[in-house]
Amino acid sequence: MGKEKKNQTIKFKHPPKIIGNYAIVGPKEGEGTFKDYFDYVVQNDNFGEDTYEKAERKMLEHAIMGAADKAGISTKDIDVLLCGDLLNQIISSSYAARSFDLCYLGVFGACSTMALSLAMGSAFIDAGHFQNIACATSSHFSSAERQFRYPLELGNQRPPTAQWTATAAGCSILSSEGDGPIITSATFGKVIDFDICDVNNMGAAMAPAAMSTMLAHFRDTNTTPDDYDLIVTGDLGKLGSEILIDLMEEEGIKLGINYCDCGQMMFKHDQNVFMGGSGCGCSASVLNSFILRKIREGVYKKVLFMATGALLSPTSCQQGESIPGVAHAVVIEKGE
Amino acid sequence: MGKEKKNQTIKFKHPPKIIGNYAIVGPKEGEGTFKDYFDYVVQNDNFGEDTYEKAERKMLEHAIMGAADKAGISTKDIDVLLCGDLLNQIISSSYAARSFDLCYLGVFGACSTMALSLAMGSAFIDAGHFQNIACATSSHFSSAERQFRYPLELGNQRPPTAQWTATAAGCSILSSEGDGPIITSATFGKVIDFDICDVNNMGAAMAPAAMSTMLAHFRDTNTTPDDYDLIVTGDLGKLGSEILIDLMEEEGIKLGINYCDCGQMMFKHDQNVFMGGSGCGCSASVLNSFILRKIREGVYKKVLFMATGALLSPTSCQQGESIPGVAHAVVIEKGE
Repeated sequence: MGKEKKNQTIKFKHPPKIIGNYAIVGPKEGEGTFKDYFDYVVQNDNFGEDTYEKAERKMLEHAIMGAADKAGISTKDIDVLLCGDLLNQIISSSYAARSFDLCYLGVFGACSTMALSLAMGSAFIDAGHFQNIACATSSHFSSAERQFRYPLELGNQRPPTAQWTATAAGCSILSSEGDGPIITSATFGKVIDFDICDVNNMGAAMAPAAMSTMLAHFRDTNTTPDDYDLIVTGDLGKLGSEILIDLMEEEGIKLGINYCDCGQMMFKHDQNVFMGGSGCGCSASVLNSFILRKIREGVYKKVLFMATGALLSPTSCQQGESIPGVAHAVVIEKGE
Repeated sequence: MGKEKKNQTIKFKHPPKIIGNYAIVGPKEGEGTFKDYFDYVVQNDNFGEDTYEKAERKMLEHAIMGAADKAGISTKDIDVLLCGDLLNQIISSSYAARSFDLCYLGVFGACSTMALSLAMGSAFIDAGHFQNIACATSSHFSSAERQFRYPLELGNQRPPTAQWTATAAGCSILSSEGDGPIITSATFGKVIDFDICDVNNMGAAMAPAAMSTMLAHFRDTNTTPDDYDLIVTGDLGKLGSEILIDLMEEEGIKLGINYCDCGQMMFKHDQNVFMGGSGCGCSASVLNSFILRKIREGVYKKVLFMATGALLSPTSCQQGESIPGVAHAVVIEKGE
């Protein structure tokens, strides 16, 4: 090859501040590891709506309003909403956007959406294009399960490699003004496919993409894992994050105890979720609760947040295709 | 209200150049109005693949390679692919991205995707974040029809308000260097819903969003329709574009003979498509063939290209929801 590797990372000259963030989760998630950190725990999966899809949308709207409120601004002050989700035609996002008076830029990165929206939003703020941008995403166990796998009513057994799609939504408000943790760089990922075809093994499908983006990030920023207080992947789960550790070690990079995974951490051992949490809402809710609070408190000064997405489609799986993955990353620092 | 209207428009300080563009269409589209302008007309809807979804993906890959070739660069020189389509989980885009060695940013704006990707890509280039960005999208009559409406095998009658999803893909390569038409501003749209529930009347569902973005554009840039040689909407079709003309007139703005619509123009009268073309590929293929050629030739010096999207979802329609719309716009000028 010989050709120098392409730069995948933007270093921001005017790093945006996260002036507000909000995480809302379902009842099961609200009993998990981060139960004391979420802003709101829904008492019922339906959240008072007659369908799971509407419940998911309501949680997303709730997250956007909550984040604006915590930022001390009105939703009218938000210029742009960068938002996506797992449902077909990203309906949670599109219908949530309808409720607010703002520009809507729909994005799709499957479970990497929180990092994708933060990366794109940061680039817009850095360039001075807008003042306040809301980056948000959501997922719902029941709406995702019936769309991607089987109707819940079927009572299917879940294999040991399965992850549990989190019922959760998260939103961060990025701003050129104000106080809060800052986003100092963003690394965009490539689509990577290691020929995994098992719709119940998302971790294995995403790990190669996580490796690709992580290597690009360390290379582009000339950093090593030791430069971060926390390196956190989106939702590789237990199996996927072990695969990532192995893949990185083969590349000569050792991920140490400062590495963890939102999917692996989200639920407790006795919650019967096998390989851990997944879904856009998993990393979105962990970031917008625990991680950002710990950055604000000064426990973490520099965090590499990398959300991973399995570009899973029932249609393409039925047509014999494998499941490609993608991962995007942002560096979040305490700032002054 | 009293509050000043929010700015939805970015004026670029370093306008990106469209250094290459490519349009590929299906056989029916290849017999339409712009038959002499397309780069490639596929002879068979299957394009040698065993499913329509794979055919659509292949057309999209073809468009990306073709645009890079016409730009005089290798696909390896493309830093970022901004891409989306109509299929669930935007599989045409994700799987096409897998074929290339580049960063992939998935976007979703339904049929507004060509303008959305150009607007976002221009913002990235303007800020100096990347050198070459490919903006692309596709649609396929047969894959869209079975996903959004009925299986073709059912032989359903089409009502007179229906539009024909174009089998087409288009790609523009944006660059900070080189020659070509320039993108001087971009206007991002809001999600607008006028309570249309008919999945066979997309034009009516999108027209209010088109009005909203067009009004914002004229307001933000302090221009009138007379300032443009061509104002072209995405795929409102005959009915939708008439509704837009009426809505704009109610707002005191008269759209004259310099206004037209890609959906309305794409097919000939005897092609039996009722209200005209639609789908991401409709505006993408008309832009990347006829319109950009006429800009290069100097026939048009300043064009407002506004693609419109109906955020239609079979799931939400079944749950009694109406169909919201969104529209995004870019101004393309001849440059020097």
